[in-house]
Amino acid sequence: MAKELKDLTKRADNYSQWYNDLVTKADLAEQSPVRGCMVIKPYGYAIWEKMQHQLDTMFKETGAQNAYFPLLIPKSFLSREAEHVEGFAKECAVVTHYRLKATADKSAVEVDPAAKLEEELIIRPTSETIIWNTYKNWIHSYRDLPLMCNQWCNVMRWEMRTRPFLRTSEFLWQEGHTAHATKEEAEAEAEKMLKVYAKFAEEWMAVPVVQGVKSETERFAGALDTYTIEAMMQDGKALQSGTSHFLGQNFAKAFDVTFLNKENKPEYVWATSWGVSTRLIGALIMTHSDDNGLVLPPRLAPIQVVIIPIAKNAEQMAAIAEKFAPVISELRSKGVSVKFDDSDNKRPGFKFADYELKGVPVRLCMGGRDMENNTVEVMRRDTLEKETVGFDGIAGYVETLLDEIQKNIFEKARRFRDEHIYECENYDEFKERIKDGGFFLCPWDGTAETEARIKEETQATIRCVPFDAPQTPGVDMVSGKPSTKRVLIARSY
Amino acid sequence: MAKELKDLTKRADNYSQWYNDLVTKADLAEQSPVRGCMVIKPYGYAIWEKMQHQLDTMFKETGAQNAYFPLLIPKSFLSREAEHVEGFAKECAVVTHYRLKATADKSAVEVDPAAKLEEELIIRPTSETIIWNTYKNWIHSYRDLPLMCNQWCNVMRWEMRTRPFLRTSEFLWQEGHTAHATKEEAEAEAEKMLKVYAKFAEEWMAVPVVQGVKSETERFAGALDTYTIEAMMQDGKALQSGTSHFLGQNFAKAFDVTFLNKENKPEYVWATSWGVSTRLIGALIMTHSDDNGLVLPPRLAPIQVVIIPIAKNAEQMAAIAEKFAPVISELRSKGVSVKFDDSDNKRPGFKFADYELKGVPVRLCMGGRDMENNTVEVMRRDTLEKETVGFDGIAGYVETLLDEIQKNIFEKARRFRDEHIYECENYDEFKERIKDGGFFLCPWDGTAETEARIKEETQATIRCVPFDAPQTPGVDMVSGKPSTKRVLIARSY
Repeated sequence: MAKELKDLTKRADNYSQWYNDLVTKADLAEQSPVRGCMVIKPYGYAIWEKMQHQLDTMFKETGAQNAYFPLLIPKSFLSREAEHVEGFAKECAVVTHYRLKATADKSAVEVDPAAKLEEELIIRPTSETIIWNTYKNWIHSYRDLPLMCNQWCNVMRWEMRTRPFLRTSEFLWQEGHTAHATKEEAEAEAEKMLKVYAKFAEEWMAVPVVQGVKSETERFAGALDTYTIEAMMQDGKALQSGTSHFLGQNFAKAFDVTFLNKENKPEYVWATSWGVSTRLIGALIMTHSDDNGLVLPPRLAPIQVVIIPIAKNAEQMAAIAEKFAPVISELRSKGVSVKFDDSDNKRPGFKFADYELKGVPVRLCMGGRDMENNTVEVMRRDTLEKETVGFDGIAGYVETLLDEIQKNIFEKARRFRDEHIYECENYDEFKERIKDGGFFLCPWDGTAETEARIKEETQATIRCVPFDAPQTPGVDMVSGKPSTKRVLIARSY
Repeated sequence: MAKELKDLTKRADNYSQWYNDLVTKADLAEQSPVRGCMVIKPYGYAIWEKMQHQLDTMFKETGAQNAYFPLLIPKSFLSREAEHVEGFAKECAVVTHYRLKATADKSAVEVDPAAKLEEELIIRPTSETIIWNTYKNWIHSYRDLPLMCNQWCNVMRWEMRTRPFLRTSEFLWQEGHTAHATKEEAEAEAEKMLKVYAKFAEEWMAVPVVQGVKSETERFAGALDTYTIEAMMQDGKALQSGTSHFLGQNFAKAFDVTFLNKENKPEYVWATSWGVSTRLIGALIMTHSDDNGLVLPPRLAPIQVVIIPIAKNAEQMAAIAEKFAPVISELRSKGVSVKFDDSDNKRPGFKFADYELKGVPVRLCMGGRDMENNTVEVMRRDTLEKETVGFDGIAGYVETLLDEIQKNIFEKARRFRDEHIYECENYDEFKERIKDGGFFLCPWDGTAETEARIKEETQATIRCVPFDAPQTPGVDMVSGKPSTKRVLIARSY
């Protein structure tokens, strides 16, 4: 067994440590010397590239275009939108100088005090302010609307406690910023983009999500409504995996962005913004992986099929390679990524464990006896089941299997999630059961006071009002006041 | 004529202003409120995406993998490599604080003096230092080599004089960083990547380049050799369009990166780095465009074909649309991007001028008479020639034409370049002729003194020692000393 795998903490022993171990051992990411910032290693980045490619295609299908806005934001911009400043003008990286100089003894460099900026610049924590300042010049008439831009970039929020992918000071994301002529159109856009995120999460990441709207307390700073997709991790905690915001006219007013409507009258523009980040990689890992390592959905796996030849000698190795060559060509021509690993410095057992650790969905293995029998051993990563099948038609077999794995891990995650969603109307019961995780559908009186009390007493928060939750009248389990809706409550990442 | 086009400065009147006008009027980019940082608008960004896609494919074919390293670099890292610090530790954006707080009157935000960083962080001007600090943990044995990572990211160099795409404080680029077991392998890698850049420039951007090696003065800070591709703009100035560096063991020594060789002895690792940036968009614009606007090579044009119907009424518009539908499908199925512009708020003349300004390679136009005759008017942007051709088989005709345009603009640029490369052995003659631009192949004695004098007296620099320049012995035109090689001298961007 590979050393890396042997050292992987078991989920049941310490779920949190298992996650950290896995990120490191599967070569996804590592801490950098800059506090809270991670290095995304090639294998982790390859997953992000696959995510980006699919999301980008889906965004463009909605009519959004990519653009790029500056990394640095003048400090004063952050105070233009009153609520936004509360949320984002706090833990920021602040650029105050623009030059270094050699120290007197020439042994090092120091900040040149003469190069102090007149106005400090902030590394973007999110880009509403700089983008709406730009949109002011791009929008004049209703004919300029809708305007739908997205950017793929890095952002920075100075976090005190960080975890790779889940919460880091610098992270990669996309942020869409759209401008519309009417409230209805902007609201529809925010909802549409949430559906795009939900579709991506379920069909590509194989992660089932609850779609809903955030409570006022949990909204994005500056939004009138924040829509969210919430996924359940294997410890029963929620992970907010993507959000879409209806921003009303707040940013248009803060940056004075108006358009002339069809009657030639000026009106403020309506806005949305929406984003997902490298946090999705954390969601992917935590939803599917097991004590043997990563389990990746085939549609996002950097390597979908690994072929491991087991040969007694060079001649047999060449024969196996020759036998697989047309299979590899066929699979690649269909867009399947295949690795033929004939490296001679690792034993097959090491390779098996290593590709399991890396979550490669399908492993094909062929030895001398398989050659004689014209068979191949197929291992699927999701169930770890092995079977020996006939070699002829193996490419088609693998393609079907990849589809089946994609469906199976989604269904498995959905079953797990559904088995851990509870309706609950009794606060004592809730306080006891929340310790074991899970999503709780509870009646809520709609007040911030109740919400705050739940958070304080249980560390759980209202994740959202699910779109499809039972909306029958009831009694708030905490305050005893009437409730018109059930909300989803959980502890979260 | 579209207002935007009418206002475009002519190249002959003011080449520099023509460029600035074109960047703005063709909707490529604009200045942001942050000094020296630009907003890349959707049309400009679409060109960058096409560049990225092709370059990324070419990099991966060489075995490089993408990864992501932190934006911020500890100040002390910059002084680890002695020459590097000279080049890059000067005009940098420096992060000194990590928090803002509300001002006393709550009307704005200010830097929280309590949140001062112990060690300042620099926004990466390039990432050799942070990457080699990371490679230290990734490289142990010769089996870990070669290690070839690339990252697509933003970088920042605090520039005093900026111009969109050509020189901006923040820009987008890719930086490849490779680690090798031997000097020979690292040198070969640096040369190979230069060839990749040259191939991309010539075959995709249709920009002919001179490949060569930089003089010691012009080298990347910390490199033993810097290879470059130099393109000639229409004013005869050189634009350095991509560089590849052989870094020797400098960074390995600075960050103590060693590997155990096959004899189990520790050795320092050999390094390269290589990069191209959004500057390429500037090169693209300046090489091909004309007084009517952009001329884009078909392989990088966001819109390759625009179809403009000219209809008297809705019925005729519908008939033209129906007629083109299968053509559009056929072209798109072949990967050709087509826009059918039936917008009714702009007159055809405005559309013609606008798509010329935007550099769309092929325009198809159909009116009532064309409908009757089963013909279509084809305009090619590179020559502005129009012809009326039969409608049947128009998709194939357009495909062939796109290939022809790609070739033609490359040949045109190459002819122009070749007509403006001069051999010159007389300094007085050089001083006179350099005023009109052009590339000069001159004998050089190899000293920094001569190089400095040329620069001071003529503002021209040694762009490179071309790989294929005549290397016959001669006499330095400035010093009169013996010269073993001719170098390429030009004024540059």
